[in-house]
Amino acid sequence: MEIYSARLAKVWDWMTEEGISLVVLEDTEGRRDQNIRWLTGHPGDALLFISQNRKAILMAWDVNLAMQYASNAPILLVAYNDFDRQPCKAIAAAAQMLEIPAGAKIEIPSVMPYPAFLDYVGKLTNYDIICRERGACAQIKKFRAVKDEEEIAVTRKAAGITNELIDLLEKNVRSGKIKTEADAALLIEVEARKRGCEGTSFETLAAGPKRSFAIHAFPNWTYSAFGVDGLSILDFGVRLNGYSTDVTLTFARGLTPKQEKLAALVEKAAKLAISMARNGTRAKDIAAAVDAHFAKAKKQMPHSLGHGVGLQEHEYPIIRNHSDNEWVMEPGMIFTIEPGLYDPLLGGCRLENDILITETGTEVLTASRIIHL
Amino acid sequence: MEIYSARLAKVWDWMTEEGISLVVLEDTEGRRDQNIRWLTGHPGDALLFISQNRKAILMAWDVNLAMQYASNAPILLVAYNDFDRQPCKAIAAAAQMLEIPAGAKIEIPSVMPYPAFLDYVGKLTNYDIICRERGACAQIKKFRAVKDEEEIAVTRKAAGITNELIDLLEKNVRSGKIKTEADAALLIEVEARKRGCEGTSFETLAAGPKRSFAIHAFPNWTYSAFGVDGLSILDFGVRLNGYSTDVTLTFARGLTPKQEKLAALVEKAAKLAISMARNGTRAKDIAAAVDAHFAKAKKQMPHSLGHGVGLQEHEYPIIRNHSDNEWVMEPGMIFTIEPGLYDPLLGGCRLENDILITETGTEVLTASRIIHL
Repeated sequence: MEIYSARLAKVWDWMTEEGISLVVLEDTEGRRDQNIRWLTGHPGDALLFISQNRKAILMAWDVNLAMQYASNAPILLVAYNDFDRQPCKAIAAAAQMLEIPAGAKIEIPSVMPYPAFLDYVGKLTNYDIICRERGACAQIKKFRAVKDEEEIAVTRKAAGITNELIDLLEKNVRSGKIKTEADAALLIEVEARKRGCEGTSFETLAAGPKRSFAIHAFPNWTYSAFGVDGLSILDFGVRLNGYSTDVTLTFARGLTPKQEKLAALVEKAAKLAISMARNGTRAKDIAAAVDAHFAKAKKQMPHSLGHGVGLQEHEYPIIRNHSDNEWVMEPGMIFTIEPGLYDPLLGGCRLENDILITETGTEVLTASRIIHL
Repeated sequence: MEIYSARLAKVWDWMTEEGISLVVLEDTEGRRDQNIRWLTGHPGDALLFISQNRKAILMAWDVNLAMQYASNAPILLVAYNDFDRQPCKAIAAAAQMLEIPAGAKIEIPSVMPYPAFLDYVGKLTNYDIICRERGACAQIKKFRAVKDEEEIAVTRKAAGITNELIDLLEKNVRSGKIKTEADAALLIEVEARKRGCEGTSFETLAAGPKRSFAIHAFPNWTYSAFGVDGLSILDFGVRLNGYSTDVTLTFARGLTPKQEKLAALVEKAAKLAISMARNGTRAKDIAAAVDAHFAKAKKQMPHSLGHGVGLQEHEYPIIRNHSDNEWVMEPGMIFTIEPGLYDPLLGGCRLENDILITETGTEVLTASRIIHL
């Protein structure tokens, strides 16, 4: 109860400062939002209504599931089906139940499509409907970027499981028990759940040397050879009580000098980035240093250097070399560092670990590595 | 080449009628859109620009992957990274390359968030930026609701594989080889890919009697007992060359009279719905008939009766009892019929099959069933 109350209190305080009477969050197909799970514990399709007068209504599609998962949150549970699963009907009803005064500001999710926004404004004429990129959704995601003690503890546990899996994967590739992408991916599915995880945090990407040139291999895994001559990539994570890890291993065997160089550049980039990460550092400075390191070798990384991990596998902070990126590292942030280089002929190499910013430095939570076979 | 040209031609013709100079489609994290795969073959993150002067540019994040998958489409391939993966920069550049005149109508995806829409309008002042719920994206999805011969052929093949899996699942549950939700889910992962599938079409939901009360079990599968006394649900699909199936089996063992009644009601609902489905029937009439059938027994189904399947596991047509639902069945439509009832004490029962509307009737493509053990 206390955790969810404390989290909702942060939102209530922020709403008072901003003068927002009602915040509407939505978790639905095509517009997933883990903010609802963070605030209530409920992991499924739902609307969450948070009112400035310090109340909240969870309107769940599956009430039976919500009774199980949101029982510790200070919310009133209502069936979304009672409103035909029509967002406008649901908002109007919730606003009445929560005694939102006419003319008050109601903030809807920042990802609301423009046509839906127009529809809401047209139908909810009693209220001032607002929708901002840097509004309530983004603010709650910002709160989530700095993990509390409980979140750090569960992520450490998830990282421990991830590390056990990494060791097992290395052992089984070395022994020849893992011969295909499928062998690697299925081992993760089985062993993660055996250790109490909800599952993997995203679809495992296992790509042998013929397919590792792709940033995200498609299909995500097949029965192709894995761990044979060349560069094989394995990108996976586990989810424990909602919290994700995200790591990438590269298996290297019988490399050509050009492939050796690729792997060495990536390994050095990871070290460089982790050595720079600490309280107060700007995320874009680290990403720029890695880009410069690759540019010296006339190489270019086609993706960001990293991203936060938590209830979502991709969340704040953003670790990218872009002038607009204003993220600064703070104690409690957990994010990936994942330099990678890809070449249609040489294959790809990525090295990804999850790190925690502490008061005094950096803790590398996961033990991913380039494994030379 | 011919398939993609023919599909793009449909869009070009529609654009001429509508007076739209440029259509922008986007497939990105949080806003997935299989329209790009349907029009080009490319399955990954990308923007697709379609101009009324019958040209198209595919701007892919991973150019190497796009070279492999979009090689048969009449498109110009460009690297999204050349525009810093900034949509506005990319649109401005594509509009120039495609010689879109100043003041012309550019339609952006219907799911574009309101704040992003404002940003585009503010930055792309040379053009008339439009964003409609029933615009280009919806129109292409409508085209996709009626499958062509090649799509029907591949879906039949995917359904054949699904049916092999259903038989194998029944055999292994009966023999005791499948004892847990995990056993069932992993068998599907392995056997689907062995038969050439890209994978499953969504995360398999395997729920033994203790968890089948949920519409979508959470977590999606665990090491809990499966196929033991009570109602166990198994909701899965395979994806072959992009095309999905979506079925739900219920395993019933040692049912109480109340559970028997639940299963019988669901079985009868499925038969009723399939008997009504044919060319010219309104989707909402079938869904209303099933709702009435359940209402007579004082039961209520908490979800829609069905949905189209194809490149997405949920697509048009919508098979739901709602006054706004104007979908009418046509030959070539492939959709699910999936009545279900759920009870926190009795557990859940769902029976889902994929059916094809033909000129003369209905073809039930999949052989899902309630299996009495």
